[in-house]
Amino acid sequence: MRWDRPPVHETILSLPSWVVGRVEYDRGYATDEERMRLAIRLAAENIANGTGGPFGAAVFERGSGRLIAVGVDSVVRLNNSTAHAEMLALQLAQRRIASGDLAAAGHPAHELFTTCAPCAMCLGAVHLSGVTRLVSAARREDTTRQEPATGTVAKDSSTRLRAHGIEIVEDLLRPEARAVLIDGASTP
Amino acid sequence: MRWDRPPVHETILSLPSWVVGRVEYDRGYATDEERMRLAIRLAAENIANGTGGPFGAAVFERGSGRLIAVGVDSVVRLNNSTAHAEMLALQLAQRRIASGDLAAAGHPAHELFTTCAPCAMCLGAVHLSGVTRLVSAARREDTTRQEPATGTVAKDSSTRLRAHGIEIVEDLLRPEARAVLIDGASTP
Repeated sequence: MRWDRPPVHETILSLPSWVVGRVEYDRGYATDEERMRLAIRLAAENIANGTGGPFGAAVFERGSGRLIAVGVDSVVRLNNSTAHAEMLALQLAQRRIASGDLAAAGHPAHELFTTCAPCAMCLGAVHLSGVTRLVSAARREDTTRQEPATGTVAKDSSTRLRAHGIEIVEDLLRPEARAVLIDGASTP
Repeated sequence: MRWDRPPVHETILSLPSWVVGRVEYDRGYATDEERMRLAIRLAAENIANGTGGPFGAAVFERGSGRLIAVGVDSVVRLNNSTAHAEMLALQLAQRRIASGDLAAAGHPAHELFTTCAPCAMCLGAVHLSGVTRLVSAARREDTTRQEPATGTVAKDSSTRLRAHGIEIVEDLLRPEARAVLIDGASTP
């Protein structure tokens, strides 16, 4: 049966349809907490809608807190093991500004908020993306769902990202994000 | 001007159009060298066609050497800093078999060939993808184009991937891949 599947030359990374209309773009999210609460709400709604795991992310302009793009875990929905919340948010932000560099000249600096400390792939993607600030809520050990990814996270990842000029904030609203992770883990 | 760009809810990862018709799928690539030469040719043609950097990758079934999917560097063409050759090959392979796990039951084992040792993001993606073998040609130090990524590759990445059961082969046809990297670096 699998031999019948023709070669594939493109694939689409899409957010679940419920996201449209549930997110207010183009207004300032004033505080770090307000920005993270958006990501946590997306993680919770991803579970409630049955569209993925309890992970959310968002890219903002650093100064204004203007929301550029969001992401939710979409691995199972899209049959794509790279479709972590952070990966979607970063790629959609880059498409929106029409640049593969979120630090490109003529644009304000950008930051990524994520409900859970990123896996090795996403940390590498953060590094390449041009964001200059990474803010996370829950820790990797707060979830069991990312075990395969956690295994490749080097202990000094944060140190090396900081050495490349990326500001890192961890544990922001960790209890709220952790509660969503635990709810998500108990969802059938 | 940038304020005029509306929010984005999906993005497309596509191969350059020249790839279609230039790749023979569904035949066995008998040896490791034959598999790697396909990836190296794609890297060279990506430069020749002006569609990206000198990086190519391909996913094969391990036993038969049947070609499942290919990738070429597409970062600049797609305005997407995650669009490394390995990332495209892995995602297109998963879409083709309709599973986000290349080690899914009912499928043969899969392997990734890449013309250059992967960056931190791609190593994390390899780990998550379900491939059970990773073969690379050039070393990261053979190119200057991946410097931002190289910075986050932990020295023990290979050790940790091997600990998760992924076989790793390095330096296969390194001189041939390195020659393409050097040609690519001198292309305007």
